[in-house]
Order: sequence, then C-alpha cells, then structure tokens
Amino acid sequence: MNDGIRHLLGLRELTAEEITEILDTAKSFREVIDRPIKKVPTLQGTTVVNLFFESSTRTRISFELAERRLSADVVNFTVSGSSVSKGETLKDTARNIEAMRTDIVVIRHSSTGAPHLLSRLLKSAVINAGDGINEHPTQALLDMYTMRSKFSTLQGLRVCIVGDIAHSRVARSNIFGLTKMGARVGVCGPRTLIPSYLDQFGVIEFYDIDRAIEWADVLNVLRIQLEREAGGQFPSIREYRLYWGINRQRLEKARKELVIMHPGPINRGVELDGDVADGQTSLILDQVTNGVAVRMAVLYLTGVRKS
Amino acid sequence: MNDGIRHLLGLRELTAEEITEILDTAKSFREVIDRPIKKVPTLQGTTVVNLFFESSTRTRISFELAERRLSADVVNFTVSGSSVSKGETLKDTARNIEAMRTDIVVIRHSSTGAPHLLSRLLKSAVINAGDGINEHPTQALLDMYTMRSKFSTLQGLRVCIVGDIAHSRVARSNIFGLTKMGARVGVCGPRTLIPSYLDQFGVIEFYDIDRAIEWADVLNVLRIQLEREAGGQFPSIREYRLYWGINRQRLEKARKELVIMHPGPINRGVELDGDVADGQTSLILDQVTNGVAVRMAVLYLTGVRKS
Amino acid sequence: MNDGIRHLLGLRELTAEEITEILDTAKSFREVIDRPIKKVPTLQGTTVVNLFFESSTRTRISFELAERRLSADVVNFTVSGSSVSKGETLKDTARNIEAMRTDIVVIRHSSTGAPHLLSRLLKSAVINAGDGINEHPTQALLDMYTMRSKFSTLQGLRVCIVGDIAHSRVARSNIFGLTKMGARVGVCGPRTLIPSYLDQFGVIEFYDIDRAIEWADVLNVLRIQLEREAGGQFPSIREYRLYWGINRQRLEKARKELVIMHPGPINRGVELDGDVADGQTSLILDQVTNGVAVRMAVLYLTGVRKS
Repeated sequence: MNDGIRHLLGLRELTAEEITEILDTAKSFREVIDRPIKKVPTLQGTTVVNLFFESSTRTRISFELAERRLSADVVNFTVSGSSVSKGETLKDTARNIEAMRTDIVVIRHSSTGAPHLLSRLLKSAVINAGDGINEHPTQALLDMYTMRSKFSTLQGLRVCIVGDIAHSRVARSNIFGLTKMGARVGVCGPRTLIPSYLDQFGVIEFYDIDRAIEWADVLNVLRIQLEREAGGQFPSIREYRLYWGINRQRLEKARKELVIMHPGPINRGVELDGDVADGQTSLILDQVTNGVAVRMAVLYLTGVRKS
Repeated sequence: MNDGIRHLLGLRELTAEEITEILDTAKSFREVIDRPIKKVPTLQGTTVVNLFFESSTRTRISFELAERRLSADVVNFTVSGSSVSKGETLKDTARNIEAMRTDIVVIRHSSTGAPHLLSRLLKSAVINAGDGINEHPTQALLDMYTMRSKFSTLQGLRVCIVGDIAHSRVARSNIFGLTKMGARVGVCGPRTLIPSYLDQFGVIEFYDIDRAIEWADVLNVLRIQLEREAGGQFPSIREYRLYWGINRQRLEKARKELVIMHPGPINRGVELDGDVADGQTSLILDQVTNGVAVRMAVLYLTGVRKS
Repeated sequence: MNDGIRHLLGLRELTAEEITEILDTAKSFREVIDRPIKKVPTLQGTTVVNLFFESSTRTRISFELAERRLSADVVNFTVSGSSVSKGETLKDTARNIEAMRTDIVVIRHSSTGAPHLLSRLLKSAVINAGDGINEHPTQALLDMYTMRSKFSTLQGLRVCIVGDIAHSRVARSNIFGLTKMGARVGVCGPRTLIPSYLDQFGVIEFYDIDRAIEWADVLNVLRIQLEREAGGQFPSIREYRLYWGINRQRLEKARKELVIMHPGPINRGVELDGDVADGQTSLILDQVTNGVAVRMAVLYLTGVRKS
C-alpha cells in the first residue's frame, strides 16, 4: 500500500490491494451497523457534502446513513440537472462549497469525469457516486463485498452481468473491479447493447442467456431503463423479457444454485421475476445492507487522511 | 400491559392502558422540551426513516424535531404521490430501506392500510403519520394529551368534533381514542359529511352547531379542505361559514367557557374565526407543543424495543 | 454594550460596538472551522429553524453548516414563495413553528420587514437572512470581517460597491455597516440604478468606473441580475460589461493593488472577469469561509441568551 486512498474516482484507478483494503474495512463497519447502537464517532467534526446533480434516492440515502453513522456533519446539495451548466459553474460551485471547509465531497453527475475534475480542483476528498456512463464505483464495491461474503474469495468466481452493458456505469465498475480481483467476468444482452471495449479486459460475451446461466456462479442483473425502449437500439419490453429476462424456469433448467444480484430498483417481471428476486439465492437485500458498510469504509479511508 | 407497543398503526389497535402509557410518557418528554437543553440521548444510534408519500410540513417537522431531540439518526424520504405506484413498489421501497438497518419507519401515505402492510413486512417499528382517510393516531394522541392536561382526566369529558367528519382521519382517530378513554364524543357538520359508522361508538350527532356548543366542553374544529367545495357533497365556503363556522358571537350565546382546539393549519374566517383561534380558551398552540412530546413518547416506546 | 444582541434584523439596527462584538466573536469561530474537528458543543439542545421563503443555496448551506458546527438541532422549512401568502399566514406559520420550542429562527423572505414582524411575534431570536430589497446583514458582516482581516481596521478604508445599488440588499447592509464602522463608502453603477437615499450616509457616487477604481481600496462587485435586462431601467448585458465590468485592463490602469470582493455567485465575464475573480487580490473565497464563522458568531450571540 502507498499513502492511502485519497479519492474514490473509479475502480479503474484502484489497485487490487486498495480494493481489498476497502472491502476489509467495510467488514468491520458491517459489524457496526448490525449492532443496536449503529454509530461510531470516527468522523466527528468532519464535513461531508453530498453534491447530487442527478436525482437518486437509494444511493443518496445510503451515503447519508453511512455519513451519519460515522458522526460526520452532512450537507445535502441537490440540483436538477437543468439549472446548472457544466464546466465553469461546477468548478465555481465546488470551490465555493469547499471554501466552507468541507472534508469530503460525494458527487453524482450526468457528465463523465465530473468527479475527476473536482479532484483536481479541490483539497477535499472526492467520492464518485456515479458519473455519466463511466463508473459507479461504490455500487461495484458493494457487489464485490457481497460476492466475497458469500464465496470467501473473488478469485476464479464466474460473474455474468446481464442487460444493457453499453449504457451501464454499474457494469463498467464491476468489470474493472472484478477482473482486478481475479474473477472471471461474462456479459449477456442484446448485441446492440454490448460495447466494444470489453476485449481488453478478457470479458466473455454471451448472446444466449441459457448459456450464460450454465457458465456463471453469479448473475448480476442490471435494471432496464424502460425509457430507452423508444430508442431504436433497444428491443421491446416484451421481447427483452422473452430473450433476456431471468425467471424460475430458466434457472431450473441449469440444475444448479445461481446467486442472483441486482443493483435496484427492480423492474419485476421485466429483467427479473419477483419470485427469483425474493428467492433463496437472491442476495439483493444483502447488497443494500452492505452498501452502507462499503460507503462507511470509503468515507473513512478517504476522510481520515483529511482530518 | 403486554409486551409493549410494537407499532403505532392506529388508535383502533390500542387499549386504554396503552394509550395511557403513551400519554404518561409524553408528560416526561414535555418537561424535556421545556428545558433550555431540549435533548436526551435515548435513541442514539437508532435510525428513523420518515417515509412521506403525502406532502406535509407540520407533521414532518414535528416528527423530525421529536427524533432529533431523542438523538436518533434521521433520514427523510419524501416522494410525490405520483412517482411511486402502490403495493409492490411500496413493499420494495420499504424492504430496501429496512435493509439499510432502520429501527423505526414513520409513514404517511394516501392509501388506507399502508402502515399496516409495512408492519407485516418489516422488522422495524412502524408509526402511522396519517394513512388515507383511515387514521392519524399521533394527532389524536396529542389532542387527548392536551385535553387531559387541561381537565386532568378524559373520563366523562364532552368533546365535539366539528367539520367534515366523513373524510377526516383526525376525526376517526379522535373517536377511537376518546371513546376508549371514557370521554363522550359528539360530531357536528353537514349531514352529507357525517359518516354512518358512528353508531357503534356511541357518538352523538349534532346538525345544529349551537346545540353542539351548548353540549360540549371542548370543540375540536377540523380544517375544511377548501378544494372539496367543487365536489357536490360540500356546501359553499360562504354557506359553511354561516352554518358551521365557530365565531365569538356563537360562543358568547352559550355563556360558558369552551375549550377550542384545531389540528391546523387554520382557515381563519372559514371554520374558525381568528379572534377565537387566538383567544383565552384556545389550546391550539399547546397542541403543537404537545405534538412533539407525544411523538417523542411514541418513538421511545416503539423504538426501545428494537434497540 | 447593553444586554446583548437579541435579534439580527439589520445593520441599521446595530451600533458600532455590537458590530465589533460580532466580528470579534467570529474570529474565534474562524479558528474553530480551520481545525480538523470543526465542531463545538455551544448550542447543543438548541433548536434552529431555517425558514426560507426565497430559494437560496449558498446562504442556506452556510447557515446550516454554522448551525451544525455549533451542535444545534436544525430544522429546514423551505417554501416556494407562491404557496404561502403574506401577513397572517407568515404569522401563523411562525407561531406554530415556535410552539415546537425553537430558540432561533433564521428567515429569508421576499417581503421587506418580514424578520422584524417575526421578532415582534416570537420569543425566539430572529436572524435576517435577506428580506426583500431591505437588508442582508450577515452578508455585510462577512464582507466587513473579510476587509478587517485584510486591513486590520475598517476606519478610513475606502470601499466602492459596484453594480445595481438600487435593488441590492447587500449594498444597503454594507452601506449601513461600513459607515458605522468609520469606513468611507462609494457606489458606482448606471445612474438609473443609484438610489436617492445615499446622501444621508455620506456615500460618494461614481458614474465612471475608472474614477471609482482610482479612489477605492476595495471593490465590492455586486452580482448583476441577468433577468432584469428586459426591465428597461437596465442597460444590455453587453453595454453593462463595457461600462461597468471589472477586468484586468481596467485594474492595471490604476497602477495599484485593489482588493476584489463579490457576494457570489459570479457572472463571469459580465460584472467581473474570471481572471480577476481568481486573481491574487481577490478575497472572494475568503468571504465564503468567513461567512460560516460570522454566522456562527451571530447564532451564538443571539442564541445563548435564549438557552
């Protein structure tokens, strides 16, 4: 390890050692949030700003809970995308907020690279809570944490990501992180939604969901953006469900126990059937619990360097 | 008493003993909020989620203050009714939020029974902050607390609820609670707005406000929903005011001191005249203060079982 | 000094001694926020309500941070101007919120005098966060704090306020405060935007920006409300920039180091060029940092009398 994790911009920027440090730290915070008193004084007197330029309920609440359970002072700054223009204004906003003596800035932005820009401008630690179609690193970290808890190691684990890979920052962060940690990654979805950058990461492409199910230990099923249906690239919802939807019958054909994951919120009956989502091998609610622990770990590791 | 109050779904579900326990507990919290340091560490490390599917300023602020003064960690989740569909989605939302390790969920929802549904799905304590036209139990508890503080006992007290009884969850919770506590309950309002379920509770119906005033010790005046005027069932505002509005002249005719209550916000000059609302016998601002104390009591009684 | 600062309604209402007390107190809070642990227990158990009837991001966040760093309990009440009518309703809202046992009410309102009205109705301390075109006292206090830090004293300092003086509450509060503290105040802008009340304060009027620059030690450049362009009183943006915009060439002609200030957010390239805003003599980000310290001082001085 070098001098610690200064920012969390993306999993592309982290080493396997740094990812391991985050996951190990998250484990002790997971113990904290399973206690009746779910609070530690770790970040008392530290100021965290949640700069959400894209609306988000779950990720924001998860970060906010993580911050409060670390006893940080939290300021929420939520902007509708339209009212703030890019570049200069983001710079001015961020520098002004930092001038109020913030220690950590959590940013979600529709532009790829917005967290990277802030990390060059600010003294605060910057945590990426989703930037454009680039990365959503805390989601992938909580996915990996959940898999590691189940399988003890990520080494050699076969994880297939199912859905619209091309437009998913969750998929990208998973691919970057999982391959670094020695897992084998597959993707499965309509040909128009499989991007071309995958070769360099040794990702296996599946165009038949049944073959993907046969191969995988874990299915990480992405949320389908229903509003894309009109886009042309995308099949109809009915067609999507028919060819790529995960249901009981498909899983039973495989005659093995597959772990089911999903970043939420689920379109039940589209990309994932309700009984599978609520089934024995689903880790979807564990992902949510682990998300708070992983975010506490990231806030702790980036925040303590500042205070 | 059995094993304590697990949820607060409605006053219909509580016994007189449980209501008394809440009111007695509220008394000690009322002392806390009258002190310069209005904070106790009771719920430190406990997470409360305010799930407001219906907009509300006063009730939300009152709950939030109660939560913070108990040192709980508070997360606000506010949704405009339109963006969330019912049933399955409420279930998914609630289970996801609980997976972040919440202890208490305060829910306001336009659908009757939403808190009851959550109480069956979640391990968290569920507190009803208003569900459809069913119940608003903390409002009725604070009303009863205020009356008990004034009259020492609710036993035999004559309380008349004035207004649109049929569509009021405040009226329902008051009727359930007051009758359990031995008070006598009257209702007064236009015939079209008096529901048929009242007989079984021994509620006296008044169709003449002057006779109601003559009978009652307390008038609990409901807020008129001005937007209902167009509905057909409802008289015009002018007509309503003429026949049911509470004003100085009407009260003076009765030659006795009537206690005036109102859940707020008041339509001054419609259901209640300003000078009466601000008068000597009005307990309207006491209700607001007591609301925080009663909510602290409910949070404490449901929350301590969890932690 | 008399019995202390009960409210902060405007700088017009304060004496030079009271202003000095606030600035001196802010100095110790500025030291707090420069520490890694930026929190003191001063207002623990004290309830502060932020009543924002006008939208504001920076001022609200600055107040909120100040409140949290003093360990107060914070409740945010934000209303869009249209949904609340004036007079009676503001009174009812305020009295209801106070009934929940608040200690300090911070109010921003589009009506001149709204904070003064509240101060007569409430027992809570009232802090004006901007009322109509009347005053924005904490902005002027942070401006004065920043100037005093730079020049040791305000006595004899020459401060020129540039822009739309007539519609600016920042300008008014600066004029009231600076003249009380012995500074010399100039204003500069289009003739239609220079108000007539300035004579009584001994304010010097400049209609030529180059002469203003020659005279001043400090330029306090106001934000131009771009939406006023259509108003008639106002020149076009292009014209404004040409005649009144502050840029490098204009400042270099003066052959001296002028301190540049701006209340933010800046319209870069309109009232102020980006290189000047980011330049060596700009104190704009110091203003933001000092704003939190000054607000902590005001909250402390008005709040401790209450608790």
